[in-house]
Amino acid sequence: MIDVGIVGGTGYSGAELLRLLARHPGVRVRVLTSRQEAGQRADALFPQLRGVCELSFSAPDVETLAHCQAVFFATPHGAALALAPELVQRGVKVLDLSADFRLKDPAQYARWYQHEHTAPALLKEAVYGLPEVNRESIKKARLVACPGCYPTSVQLGLLPLLEQRLLVPGSIIASCTSGVSGAGRELKTGSLFAEAADNVKAYGVNGHRHLPEIEQGLSSIAGKPVALTFIPHLVPAIRGIHATLVADLERDADVQAPDVQAMYEKRYANEPFVDVLPAGAHPETRSVRGTNRCQIALHRPGGGKRVVVLSVIDNLVKGAAGQAVQCFNLMHGLSETAGLELPALWP
Amino acid sequence: MIDVGIVGGTGYSGAELLRLLARHPGVRVRVLTSRQEAGQRADALFPQLRGVCELSFSAPDVETLAHCQAVFFATPHGAALALAPELVQRGVKVLDLSADFRLKDPAQYARWYQHEHTAPALLKEAVYGLPEVNRESIKKARLVACPGCYPTSVQLGLLPLLEQRLLVPGSIIASCTSGVSGAGRELKTGSLFAEAADNVKAYGVNGHRHLPEIEQGLSSIAGKPVALTFIPHLVPAIRGIHATLVADLERDADVQAPDVQAMYEKRYANEPFVDVLPAGAHPETRSVRGTNRCQIALHRPGGGKRVVVLSVIDNLVKGAAGQAVQCFNLMHGLSETAGLELPALWP
Amino acid sequence: MIDVGIVGGTGYSGAELLRLLARHPGVRVRVLTSRQEAGQRADALFPQLRGVCELSFSAPDVETLAHCQAVFFATPHGAALALAPELVQRGVKVLDLSADFRLKDPAQYARWYQHEHTAPALLKEAVYGLPEVNRESIKKARLVACPGCYPTSVQLGLLPLLEQRLLVPGSIIASCTSGVSGAGRELKTGSLFAEAADNVKAYGVNGHRHLPEIEQGLSSIAGKPVALTFIPHLVPAIRGIHATLVADLERDADVQAPDVQAMYEKRYANEPFVDVLPAGAHPETRSVRGTNRCQIALHRPGGGKRVVVLSVIDNLVKGAAGQAVQCFNLMHGLSETAGLELPALWP
Amino acid sequence: MIDVGIVGGTGYSGAELLRLLARHPGVRVRVLTSRQEAGQRADALFPQLRGVCELSFSAPDVETLAHCQAVFFATPHGAALALAPELVQRGVKVLDLSADFRLKDPAQYARWYQHEHTAPALLKEAVYGLPEVNRESIKKARLVACPGCYPTSVQLGLLPLLEQRLLVPGSIIASCTSGVSGAGRELKTGSLFAEAADNVKAYGVNGHRHLPEIEQGLSSIAGKPVALTFIPHLVPAIRGIHATLVADLERDADVQAPDVQAMYEKRYANEPFVDVLPAGAHPETRSVRGTNRCQIALHRPGGGKRVVVLSVIDNLVKGAAGQAVQCFNLMHGLSETAGLELPALWP
Repeated sequence: MIDVGIVGGTGYSGAELLRLLARHPGVRVRVLTSRQEAGQRADALFPQLRGVCELSFSAPDVETLAHCQAVFFATPHGAALALAPELVQRGVKVLDLSADFRLKDPAQYARWYQHEHTAPALLKEAVYGLPEVNRESIKKARLVACPGCYPTSVQLGLLPLLEQRLLVPGSIIASCTSGVSGAGRELKTGSLFAEAADNVKAYGVNGHRHLPEIEQGLSSIAGKPVALTFIPHLVPAIRGIHATLVADLERDADVQAPDVQAMYEKRYANEPFVDVLPAGAHPETRSVRGTNRCQIALHRPGGGKRVVVLSVIDNLVKGAAGQAVQCFNLMHGLSETAGLELPALWP
Repeated sequence: MIDVGIVGGTGYSGAELLRLLARHPGVRVRVLTSRQEAGQRADALFPQLRGVCELSFSAPDVETLAHCQAVFFATPHGAALALAPELVQRGVKVLDLSADFRLKDPAQYARWYQHEHTAPALLKEAVYGLPEVNRESIKKARLVACPGCYPTSVQLGLLPLLEQRLLVPGSIIASCTSGVSGAGRELKTGSLFAEAADNVKAYGVNGHRHLPEIEQGLSSIAGKPVALTFIPHLVPAIRGIHATLVADLERDADVQAPDVQAMYEKRYANEPFVDVLPAGAHPETRSVRGTNRCQIALHRPGGGKRVVVLSVIDNLVKGAAGQAVQCFNLMHGLSETAGLELPALWP
Repeated sequence: MIDVGIVGGTGYSGAELLRLLARHPGVRVRVLTSRQEAGQRADALFPQLRGVCELSFSAPDVETLAHCQAVFFATPHGAALALAPELVQRGVKVLDLSADFRLKDPAQYARWYQHEHTAPALLKEAVYGLPEVNRESIKKARLVACPGCYPTSVQLGLLPLLEQRLLVPGSIIASCTSGVSGAGRELKTGSLFAEAADNVKAYGVNGHRHLPEIEQGLSSIAGKPVALTFIPHLVPAIRGIHATLVADLERDADVQAPDVQAMYEKRYANEPFVDVLPAGAHPETRSVRGTNRCQIALHRPGGGKRVVVLSVIDNLVKGAAGQAVQCFNLMHGLSETAGLELPALWP
Repeated sequence: MIDVGIVGGTGYSGAELLRLLARHPGVRVRVLTSRQEAGQRADALFPQLRGVCELSFSAPDVETLAHCQAVFFATPHGAALALAPELVQRGVKVLDLSADFRLKDPAQYARWYQHEHTAPALLKEAVYGLPEVNRESIKKARLVACPGCYPTSVQLGLLPLLEQRLLVPGSIIASCTSGVSGAGRELKTGSLFAEAADNVKAYGVNGHRHLPEIEQGLSSIAGKPVALTFIPHLVPAIRGIHATLVADLERDADVQAPDVQAMYEKRYANEPFVDVLPAGAHPETRSVRGTNRCQIALHRPGGGKRVVVLSVIDNLVKGAAGQAVQCFNLMHGLSETAGLELPALWP
């Protein structure tokens, strides 16, 4: 049994880590931190954990965390930046669900998160935790920067076409929707039920923090700079990201719709958590609710050079806690799917 | 007082017509038809109409309807096609909220609605009821084909740029979401609460009935063929369409972001129901809930040639019943906003 | 035109007052206060008000408010208590939507609201703004304490039976549900979409602030002390209160089901905003969405002495802003229904 | 591995059985029937089952089902009645999730389900599948009639007080809410998203099919006739039943609030799926979402003889499929919690 700690146990990602790790066959959660709730039993705050988790929250403390073999950070940005360097140095594997180690360029981090990056060496070493791209590096990593939710859905949706360099770089448009849990558990007026219900709105059209992360990821996959137009929307759902990706094939690419379908099926054939639906399907976010899966469907409307890729994930699982557990499994030589084999909650 | 009839009073558009016309200062609803509910009082079926409407449903009948000065069809396609020709001939003005007279090419109608068009002459005469484009023709029309909900949100969103011929024709992408009332009141599994709640899905990516209507409208506005990629999505809201429109400016167009903003503000300055938000805003569907308004915001992410237009309407009002009433007002020389000045229900 | 002010214009009740008063034929809103948003135009904060309201928020100030003929307080408790005495003294009619003048016993106010009552004389004078009970007093009132949302739905539901002294006093149980807007616009974790959606919970079972108000009202109606078991629940709706009221008829009361139905119909025959549905009906909160109506249905399950009354209102209209406007109309000799004749938004 | 069949695999209970049994360590689902979808793979209809279930639907057929060791009926009433007798006779254990074998009096069944009971002998033998009451009988049963969702939540909520005969029989009131999945997957107007969202309504106040089942169960527990007032409500949630139970203690019962709390804790101490919350808690349906748990909290508002019990379950798990699996485990000597240890999906 591997002893793990969770820093930031009161947000949605932290609670989701608890849900997944509680039934993980190879893990024992030993430390659960929350500055605000220190001393309180987790199941007193979260009645859904009664009978599932007997831990109490403690204040985050490097000494205590250092006794764990792995520590997950499910914290706002800045927290992992402060604690991860020492933990890594002391041999603890770190999985950071925040944005602290995602952007390879410290200047970009400072720009988008208004926070200087104080651990540039560790940033350089950090591995971006998208197993479908970096599986081997993740296995050897000391610190994994787990991808954001939108970036996961967009990168998995475009990966095969970009790897084959089939897309016109500037043509990519990602019009995505997210459930409200994606905004976290902080108190914001826009996240209130009476504001978010029966409503749809775009946000951050002129620049969202996930944009540089997506562009960095896509560029890395394509091996050349890739820009995109990214338009996130808030919809009245608890969970779920639906990414609608539109891009144009290179003019001289002779790729028919069945070729694209076959390319995706082949690329993801051995991926346990990426599921290419039959041609013409329309994935639904509820089909992956509570699971670590990404379901993808491909369309060629109009029959021209334009491709539409639909990609859905659960933002709290494949977009956060589940992907972190997947990386954790890889880092510790466990079965990659351990603790992640739950069927979707449907309806 | 103008006597009107509503054919198809039990669907959402019919109920919405009743809501709007009940408080319209110049209208008296005299006939309300429903084959299935004939004989029953409307407020027995719809308790929200108690004290608002004292009519009973009757079976649709040309003789009765012919006593009205205007008749609204809030029916599935085919119904207006069957009754409108005789009504028009007998001097009744017809407002068709269905698709029967929208597509100018009868072959297109037959293709998309699996129904032969049996009134091609009247189809030719019919005016497409988008007042922002066809105001003068609507005033003189005998039959108005009221636009679909998606087509309204997309056309209003792109109108100024297309009129100025500033867009690369093939570059337009419309990624839109609709609340579930857009699917009507028919019994479909996908419209059940337990299927549509906490879920997002695209549908009809390879061809939706509103696609030819949108392309016809955009082409007419631009004065040249315009194709688009149209991706509708179902989201867990009762009402509201959010259209996210992405398009590229012509390479040699020297149009800065402020120019586009100014162009829209000028174009819509005198439109009572189109509201251009300040630059950088993100319209929300709830801001127009229950109203006949379209709110639009403009973005130029990345600073290049790509424009993002966000356009929201209430699918049952500006996307159906409200627009029909607006056209009705025009046809009868009433104030264009009569009966349509209700503020949004918020939250 | 009567000049009015709204203190607390950024909450849901304040916004709802704006919606109703914007189209009220006899009112001009002159002052709109918000300490936090002072200086900002209301329609910049609330885009749904564009074209509806051109006011800017100002800081609350007695001098300015004193120029109005009537002032509505849509504030947390304490605010009206501080400003109302001087306004009343200067001849301004005050409509308080908060709880400051509802409980006749200052000690009860102090107990339930943790706030000493500093205007006991005015409290004594204040009229409880339930027109169905206090119409004549409201007409002459200088200060009206508008009832809470739950208290409105419960009192209207039980009024006829209590007036006839037909109920066993201790037998009354009120199991009620409220939409999340009932909790106001303050930032509370439990009001977040991801917490309140797909969930039902009771709250305040051991004592809710509306309990003493309800008991005071019911006792006043019955002319003797009436206690009740009050169980409020939060449900994932934006608006709407559904009160399920169960009570036992006095043992020697010989009242058959049709008698109760007739009694309610007679009692409310001239009430413009109370609508008794046919026997056996099940009212729905959406049937009164956006309206000032209360719809009531009566049941006698089992055929014994137990009565079930179902009563629905829109918590922001008949439960707050609408009822305040109704009282305002009465106080100013206007038609009681002025500004309140909007049909429900359905669906 | 025990081979099982599921009759009626396309409804919500059937899909939920698949979800639970797919990860059950001792079960292999061999037959999955649907008359309408026969021949189609289950995961083609339900994409959430891709990678989870490889079965195809077959038409229901006794010969095929007879090869299973146990068969679950997740069908409308009538189906189990037709097939169960022969299956039982051939040695197949039957778990009926429908109402066919719940009401011990065939006349009651005929009255409430408009269907003659054609297997009265088997009805007599059938065991009511509430493990907290009938554990030992279930272990030996050939046919288990799994309780309805409302009946489960109400009976578990009142069990300890009724067993101790502490309640005034006629005093019990059950005011319950259900998510829309409780209405099944059939096409009903009232189950449409646009009808059920942002709405609350009671239904069946004058008589709901679960009423006789609840009264039968409570009477059996109390050892004397128990009547109740049962008021179900539909709320805009996918899953979850919240039962608000109010009852009066016998006049001479000297039971203080802590006694009741202790009584419940003791009674349920060894029940794996009934969780008594700390005194004064308010259970939430989402805390048990996707789980087989019932969470209960006790209140004594007012300090008198009235008790309020709040009881929540997931209608599709403890109220249907999960309870059936729990019974199945008991019938086959497996661990009672096998396949049912999933933590709640939260948020």
